[in-house]
Amino acid sequence: MRTVGELSAHVGGVVEGDPARGIAGVAGLSDAEPDQISFLASPLYARAARHSRAGAILVGLNVPRPNDSAVLVRAENPSLAFSRVCEIFAPEPVRFEPGVSPRAHVSPGAEIGEGVSIQPGAVIEPGARVGRRTVIGANCYVGHESRIGDDCVIYPNVCIRERVTIGNHVIIHCGAVIGADGFGFDISSAEAQKIPQIGTVRIDDRVEIGANATVDRARFGQTWIQEGAKIDNLVQVAHNVVIGKNSLIAAQAGISGSSRLGQRVILAGQAGIAGHVAIGDGAIVAAQAGVGKDVPPRLMVAGYHAQPIRQEQKMEASMRRLPEIIQRLRRVEQRLGQRSDDD
Amino acid sequence: MRTVGELSAHVGGVVEGDPARGIAGVAGLSDAEPDQISFLASPLYARAARHSRAGAILVGLNVPRPNDSAVLVRAENPSLAFSRVCEIFAPEPVRFEPGVSPRAHVSPGAEIGEGVSIQPGAVIEPGARVGRRTVIGANCYVGHESRIGDDCVIYPNVCIRERVTIGNHVIIHCGAVIGADGFGFDISSAEAQKIPQIGTVRIDDRVEIGANATVDRARFGQTWIQEGAKIDNLVQVAHNVVIGKNSLIAAQAGISGSSRLGQRVILAGQAGIAGHVAIGDGAIVAAQAGVGKDVPPRLMVAGYHAQPIRQEQKMEASMRRLPEIIQRLRRVEQRLGQRSDDD
Amino acid sequence: MRTVGELSAHVGGVVEGDPARGIAGVAGLSDAEPDQISFLASPLYARAARHSRAGAILVGLNVPRPNDSAVLVRAENPSLAFSRVCEIFAPEPVRFEPGVSPRAHVSPGAEIGEGVSIQPGAVIEPGARVGRRTVIGANCYVGHESRIGDDCVIYPNVCIRERVTIGNHVIIHCGAVIGADGFGFDISSAEAQKIPQIGTVRIDDRVEIGANATVDRARFGQTWIQEGAKIDNLVQVAHNVVIGKNSLIAAQAGISGSSRLGQRVILAGQAGIAGHVAIGDGAIVAAQAGVGKDVPPRLMVAGYHAQPIRQEQKMEASMRRLPEIIQRLRRVEQRLGQRSDDD
Repeated sequence: MRTVGELSAHVGGVVEGDPARGIAGVAGLSDAEPDQISFLASPLYARAARHSRAGAILVGLNVPRPNDSAVLVRAENPSLAFSRVCEIFAPEPVRFEPGVSPRAHVSPGAEIGEGVSIQPGAVIEPGARVGRRTVIGANCYVGHESRIGDDCVIYPNVCIRERVTIGNHVIIHCGAVIGADGFGFDISSAEAQKIPQIGTVRIDDRVEIGANATVDRARFGQTWIQEGAKIDNLVQVAHNVVIGKNSLIAAQAGISGSSRLGQRVILAGQAGIAGHVAIGDGAIVAAQAGVGKDVPPRLMVAGYHAQPIRQEQKMEASMRRLPEIIQRLRRVEQRLGQRSDDD
Repeated sequence: MRTVGELSAHVGGVVEGDPARGIAGVAGLSDAEPDQISFLASPLYARAARHSRAGAILVGLNVPRPNDSAVLVRAENPSLAFSRVCEIFAPEPVRFEPGVSPRAHVSPGAEIGEGVSIQPGAVIEPGARVGRRTVIGANCYVGHESRIGDDCVIYPNVCIRERVTIGNHVIIHCGAVIGADGFGFDISSAEAQKIPQIGTVRIDDRVEIGANATVDRARFGQTWIQEGAKIDNLVQVAHNVVIGKNSLIAAQAGISGSSRLGQRVILAGQAGIAGHVAIGDGAIVAAQAGVGKDVPPRLMVAGYHAQPIRQEQKMEASMRRLPEIIQRLRRVEQRLGQRSDDD
Repeated sequence: MRTVGELSAHVGGVVEGDPARGIAGVAGLSDAEPDQISFLASPLYARAARHSRAGAILVGLNVPRPNDSAVLVRAENPSLAFSRVCEIFAPEPVRFEPGVSPRAHVSPGAEIGEGVSIQPGAVIEPGARVGRRTVIGANCYVGHESRIGDDCVIYPNVCIRERVTIGNHVIIHCGAVIGADGFGFDISSAEAQKIPQIGTVRIDDRVEIGANATVDRARFGQTWIQEGAKIDNLVQVAHNVVIGKNSLIAAQAGISGSSRLGQRVILAGQAGIAGHVAIGDGAIVAAQAGVGKDVPPRLMVAGYHAQPIRQEQKMEASMRRLPEIIQRLRRVEQRLGQRSDDD
């Protein structure tokens, strides 16, 4: 049990109400009990905040008091502040002790840094290098001559094929596959012939890659995920793709071969990018959108044949009126004594 | 070889025709040979049944005889009855003997129930608990303090991260990942900052989860898959999602953060649900549909911007007539001597 | 360093320019330096070729010289020729020595061919058979009585469940799952009941299956991937599907139960095929298309409700004109003194 005052001090907030109120844990606005703290980070949740039974609520600096019962803690970024409060109540994070499990298979030719933890069942091939304090999870595979930087966490069952380069502070979640062959076949004859995929994958510092995501190796040269980019679960990154710094790729999105995303690009869930397309810095692609051509910087596109979001919304609204429009056209035709095609 | 009479008795059916006919196996209507039994469970297959060479066909109680050659076995639910016939001809199911493989790594602090089978390469972390008669497949990972109930089957290469709770009679197929970090980043500064995902995942009794599916742990609280829900391959379940009892989620569907599905909801393949959306009990979401707002109970929605299926079908039909409509509008304009914009 | 002449001889090409020019590596047209060779295989890249700094360019036999600086090497199939040049500069491919790792678990009842390599952590169940010279990667699982042919490469962390049959020269990439239960439930009662999936999977010669793809076992009979078909990452192949010879299925596409694809069918990325649908030989399904009914041979279909590509393009063009059409209709109505519904 902590007091609201203690929690507020921890996040540099300002208390409105009784700082001595006791808080036993965290919860969302709708689920919170009077001994829990919640947060309000978006006006979308104003209604939930009004009806919340939370004992305390983290809110922005200039947000109106959402209800009469909660003690407020005002902070500049209530979502971040809430995360820091969560850590207070969270169980101790799991830590993996340095050392090589006797059940791991580390090839004699592999180079293992200081403080590295290699868990049971992991396989490290000859010529691979694992940087300092990095954790290689259970049953992971690190291929020949691949290099992983310092302070990375590679969760269980990840496969990293040969000659892949991974920077520092990278997180790769369970089951992700880095460096499988790109999907390249010559189909000029009846039987598809495999095009060798002799390039590699480069993943820069602070990248995070989701569970069961796949990042293919390049046909030649490299598939490249730049610094700070974050990739969600089940995303497909094809050969020779470049993903720019700090871009965010949501779950099940797919990026076809040789496309290039700029910096701080956002792809929402299930979006698809065709091959050889360029997406400009700061562009946003809506969920399920299909992008077949270049997107300029900072534009938001949406739709099955992706277009600027305003046009998409206008088109979408028009489409919903189509049955009405056909009725109106029919009336006009009748008025003119013109035969309607659908009689 | 069995007789039709024996098979009919096994499923509590009624024979129409020669009960002594010999049956050597099962097959679909189109592929079946005269010594095989098939089934007709939907009028969609009436035509296939008419031309089928099957020696026997399982059909409903009041279905007209589909052809002259087959012996019929009438049963209330011909599909279920067929499954029971299949089991007669199926090879013996694979069984895993109780015991801990010497090649598995079970931490001293883990608690293993009676009759459990732990296969080679599986890793069970400290504080984990595996219930009675559960099978942990080869190369699976069970994280710290995770709890798995009785009579579960966890197929090979599944990852269950720390502090996940799994009920009884749960089936998890190969390569699924339970409890990876939710995709949460604060992007108020130039560089995305990871929001700690300190919640967990709760999976209730009789849930089934498909191969390479991903169920993320909650930001706080829990991601929750309720009793009897069935999830297909490559499905993404984001942090803090709730999936209600007996819901069915088909392959490659994705559910974004904090959305809540009621009971007996059906998501067809590749459907996408935006974040913070509520889907009512018994609602159905068509394949590839994109759901951006709440869906009331028992409604079926479809479409890229999902709407009630009737409206979607009407809109879709109108869209196909669009080129014709433009022609008609042009004729009207010509009649009125009005300039057409596309000349 | 090689000379252009040497490289040209290797691919049976014809040099235009100085055959003595030294080449140190390969690159794409835009990235290539004067000591690198690139290739021009499509008129789409004519512009990139014009501005390329590449020292040499592989081009087709009758293609105009793209720029003045590059030495040209003319070849019938410049893409294939480029692949062969790549191999010259590529690092030595990784080879796995024959033999069974002492850290693998091969059941006494398994049959292992001559020259097979079984890597650490792999598990081979009783009755399984692995053909000659096949590589079973680290932490793979090969189930009871499954059969894998000669000269296959099964990359790390692949799961092959029981009684699956795999031909010769098959490649399966990391994390793929072959033979998980099909998604079949009887929902005639409140609680979904599992329909036993007692069939199997058959994969013929020269098939390639992508990373984290899933191919489910049949309800009865077999799911069948025929000779030479190539399947990309994260693809879902449901129970009882048949994929014809030399078909290509791009990433994240999904094929629902019992659908049948003919020979040389192409599914582009994220395409979805409903259940019980037939796709004719040589048909092409565009990216993200949703196919709900049969597609005749050699037709290309596209769109959310897939239709022949010409119709889709026409409909799509009409849709973009919808706001304009509504304007025009309103003008007509005003001219006629008719009340417009949207006033």
